[in-house]
Amino acid sequence: MSRSYAIIGTGALGGYYGARLHHAGCDVHFLLHSDYDHVRQHGLICESKDGDFSILKPNAYRNANDMPRCDVVCVCLKTTQNHLLPKVIPPVIKDTGVVLVMQNGLGVEDEIAGIVGPERVMGCLCFICSYKLGPGHIQHTDYGLIALGEFATRGVSDRMRAIGDDFKHAGIPVQFAEDLRVVRWQKLVWNIPYNGLTTILQTDTAALMSDPHTRQFVERIMWEVVADARTCGVPVGDEIVDRMLRSTEGKLSYRPSMKIDFDEHRRMEVETMFGNPLRAAQAAGAISPFVEALYNQLKFLDARI
Amino acid sequence: MSRSYAIIGTGALGGYYGARLHHAGCDVHFLLHSDYDHVRQHGLICESKDGDFSILKPNAYRNANDMPRCDVVCVCLKTTQNHLLPKVIPPVIKDTGVVLVMQNGLGVEDEIAGIVGPERVMGCLCFICSYKLGPGHIQHTDYGLIALGEFATRGVSDRMRAIGDDFKHAGIPVQFAEDLRVVRWQKLVWNIPYNGLTTILQTDTAALMSDPHTRQFVERIMWEVVADARTCGVPVGDEIVDRMLRSTEGKLSYRPSMKIDFDEHRRMEVETMFGNPLRAAQAAGAISPFVEALYNQLKFLDARI
Repeated sequence: MSRSYAIIGTGALGGYYGARLHHAGCDVHFLLHSDYDHVRQHGLICESKDGDFSILKPNAYRNANDMPRCDVVCVCLKTTQNHLLPKVIPPVIKDTGVVLVMQNGLGVEDEIAGIVGPERVMGCLCFICSYKLGPGHIQHTDYGLIALGEFATRGVSDRMRAIGDDFKHAGIPVQFAEDLRVVRWQKLVWNIPYNGLTTILQTDTAALMSDPHTRQFVERIMWEVVADARTCGVPVGDEIVDRMLRSTEGKLSYRPSMKIDFDEHRRMEVETMFGNPLRAAQAAGAISPFVEALYNQLKFLDARI
Repeated sequence: MSRSYAIIGTGALGGYYGARLHHAGCDVHFLLHSDYDHVRQHGLICESKDGDFSILKPNAYRNANDMPRCDVVCVCLKTTQNHLLPKVIPPVIKDTGVVLVMQNGLGVEDEIAGIVGPERVMGCLCFICSYKLGPGHIQHTDYGLIALGEFATRGVSDRMRAIGDDFKHAGIPVQFAEDLRVVRWQKLVWNIPYNGLTTILQTDTAALMSDPHTRQFVERIMWEVVADARTCGVPVGDEIVDRMLRSTEGKLSYRPSMKIDFDEHRRMEVETMFGNPLRAAQAAGAISPFVEALYNQLKFLDARI
């Protein structure tokens, strides 16, 4: 019996993965807000580097209370909208269901554990470049891999493998994380310097990597985040820094998600991407001055959006 | 016998102080570059909060070799032009003369000591708000106090008092510093956070002080600079932080000099205001991560001007 999926937030992320799952035969239900009318009329369209695809008549909803209860609830909102989750998640999740937290940053699983209980929470990191070109219109330009990790336990669970199989059948590369905290912090090693500096300095990753001062500052920030993770008891290895630098160096100009939010005058995910890691590190005894500097500058910019 | 003054760089700073000294009866000679023709024709005009004044026919020069040798050579260039000094200073200074370093930042006296010898160097900190509205046209909006300090010795020298008297007669408040290093670092306590953050965040001092995150970040940076000074063996007292915060809080919107340079697409004084203090602090064993963060971000912005 195929699993049902609720997509909470049908944007660049939720729209892409939800439409892929739909085409792989999953029963997928999309929650929309401002784009609802447009998507009811014109469907969901995804221009992907791997070939375009669309859903003419998606199961679209304006209100979570109208949705069927699902096996997997994919949280794909910007974290700046997470105050909505206590009302949105309970009506759409089956008693045996699981919430898949597909958002950036740290601490979101803890928030959602407070709503549905920790055993019903799973983390899902999305390594993807996708944009919303317009209502129901997504552009997928690169990557797509997800990494799944249980929130309340370590190791690879049966339900992780089952959900992972659905994504694999949908053509999405899947990794299973033994320890969700490790992959969350590893992603922060990339997200903190690149999202922070491209937004503050109004630039892109290629420009940061070609200037000697920002190039080495990016690396200094990465080492600070690695040290913060370890201070928090999360064993992140040294090799991640070189891997993250190499994966960005030599790439074409790229605007991270926070820079896109800033450019489009949307509130930025400063608290989950910077504030939560900073507070976690400081609570564990780290100083973390570079993250503190970026956090304070971004809070200033965010307050003026 | 009245002292003669050479003003090296007749902009917002040199034009203001030079014209004041001229009106007090000193023999003042102005070196100009791009504004030379205009000033020869139209003179120097200063709109001051204390009353406007001007010099119709200033002693203006395009080339240092044409100037008479003077008792006091006031270096008023932007520090980004300091590569010119080895050619400009020697022909205008008397054997018994002194170079007054009226620039911002750290380390400039050392550079000039390499040209004329340390015993002919005096530091002069300028606490003034003035802008160049156009060629030979200066607006003086606030303050004006100078602090004089010997470079090679401690204590208040006779020549310091004599030069200070000239400035006092010109209506300029004068302080005598027993230890030039203390006043240099004290000024950095203000300059580093405000010049850095207004430039990086594209804002002014009032906005920084009214946002809670930048307000406390400014203070955190100030304490780091105080600690850096002490690590360098310079006894800067705690009270400076409160004094600098209070002098800025409640003031109207103010654009520090680096922000003005950035806005007007001029190269910024990043090395003397950030790079030299950072390297001095690190050489003495300090870590100074906030200054490092600001320095790297400013170097990126400066390279793109």
